[in-house]
Amino acid sequence: MAKLQRRLAEFAAARNWQPYHTPKNLAAALSVEASELVEIFQWLTPEESARVMTDPDTAHRVTDEVADVLAYLLQLCEVLGIDPLAALDAKIDRNERRFPI
Amino acid sequence: MAKLQRRLAEFAAARNWQPYHTPKNLAAALSVEASELVEIFQWLTPEESARVMTDPDTAHRVTDEVADVLAYLLQLCEVLGIDPLAALDAKIDRNERRFPI
Amino acid sequence: MAKLQRRLAEFAAARNWQPYHTPKNLAAALSVEASELVEIFQWLTPEESARVMTDPDTAHRVTDEVADVLAYLLQLCEVLGIDPLAALDAKIDRNERRFPI
Amino acid sequence: MAKLQRRLAEFAAARNWQPYHTPKNLAAALSVEASELVEIFQWLTPEESARVMTDPDTAHRVTDEVADVLAYLLQLCEVLGIDPLAALDAKIDRNERRFPI
Repeated sequence: MAKLQRRLAEFAAARNWQPYHTPKNLAAALSVEASELVEIFQWLTPEESARVMTDPDTAHRVTDEVADVLAYLLQLCEVLGIDPLAALDAKIDRNERRFPI
Repeated sequence: MAKLQRRLAEFAAARNWQPYHTPKNLAAALSVEASELVEIFQWLTPEESARVMTDPDTAHRVTDEVADVLAYLLQLCEVLGIDPLAALDAKIDRNERRFPI
Repeated sequence: MAKLQRRLAEFAAARNWQPYHTPKNLAAALSVEASELVEIFQWLTPEESARVMTDPDTAHRVTDEVADVLAYLLQLCEVLGIDPLAALDAKIDRNERRFPI
Repeated sequence: MAKLQRRLAEFAAARNWQPYHTPKNLAAALSVEASELVEIFQWLTPEESARVMTDPDTAHRVTDEVADVLAYLLQLCEVLGIDPLAALDAKIDRNERRFPI
């Protein structure tokens, strides 16, 4: 993950895209990519949605959008100095207290 | 990351939440969390957005929403059998060809 | 609708909110409100989603979010000089050609 | 607006699309269209975003997405029996009490 974060930073730097990568813009871009994922599923029944990976074209599209969401999430974390894995670890701890079994 | 994915799966299983975790619902939940991130930034100028981590309360809120986005992304990948890091690695390869320097 | 658009403009002007109401910010706010609608439905089955108005609390919440989406849509149209009803009329014309019966 | 709502209902009925138009799916589609609006603005500065209508292609794209958002909002209101204008009128009343000048 650290390696991917570095590749993303180098990719953006080589294209002079950093001025566009404000936290505000990256959060918007992340939500746009998340919606492109939703778009794939929007008219499917729950059952059809469970089978999306059996169609190679749809599987590729879903995988591609997952990559885009992760790309913007990692870039947002990079510019904000957030460690996403530590953030999630702490969040699961809080959720275990909030939703006891 | 694999460890977090396992924690998330056990957390959902212990609460019998798996029936709700269709790919369609997880994609929707992911986009809702991404929008909660956007909400933090929606009225900020680009400059203000670059300083969100200097306020401890906002920093905590941003970190919390980042965790929620990652949680749903990992759970979606889990139910679909997608490796998010491999997906992103392949995507950066494609983008390097698509946007030459 | 014109009357509501005027009320919204006066409401924002009286609070000096216009500087925040750039098209970019209003589009983001619109998408955040749309996601708050999605949030109400995210874990429901299709059948449960069809019955949301039978619960008074949920009915109120849905109606409230619908109002928020419309509010930001009208404000966005106001700052951009778009007539939303004319835009939709023209769009249905195009869709009738695009998706013949 | 009532006329547009009827056109949309007839359009969907003529194509047998009603089974897809659950409130859950329409809310998701609404949020996807709202994100397509955000996408147009995501890398623009506030100043650039204020000038989007001066470029005819972008103006057309924005107008088109506004129409899509309104189309799904009206269809959602139709299946739920919500009057969007009355909902917004009531909401502005509440906001006037909530945010006194």
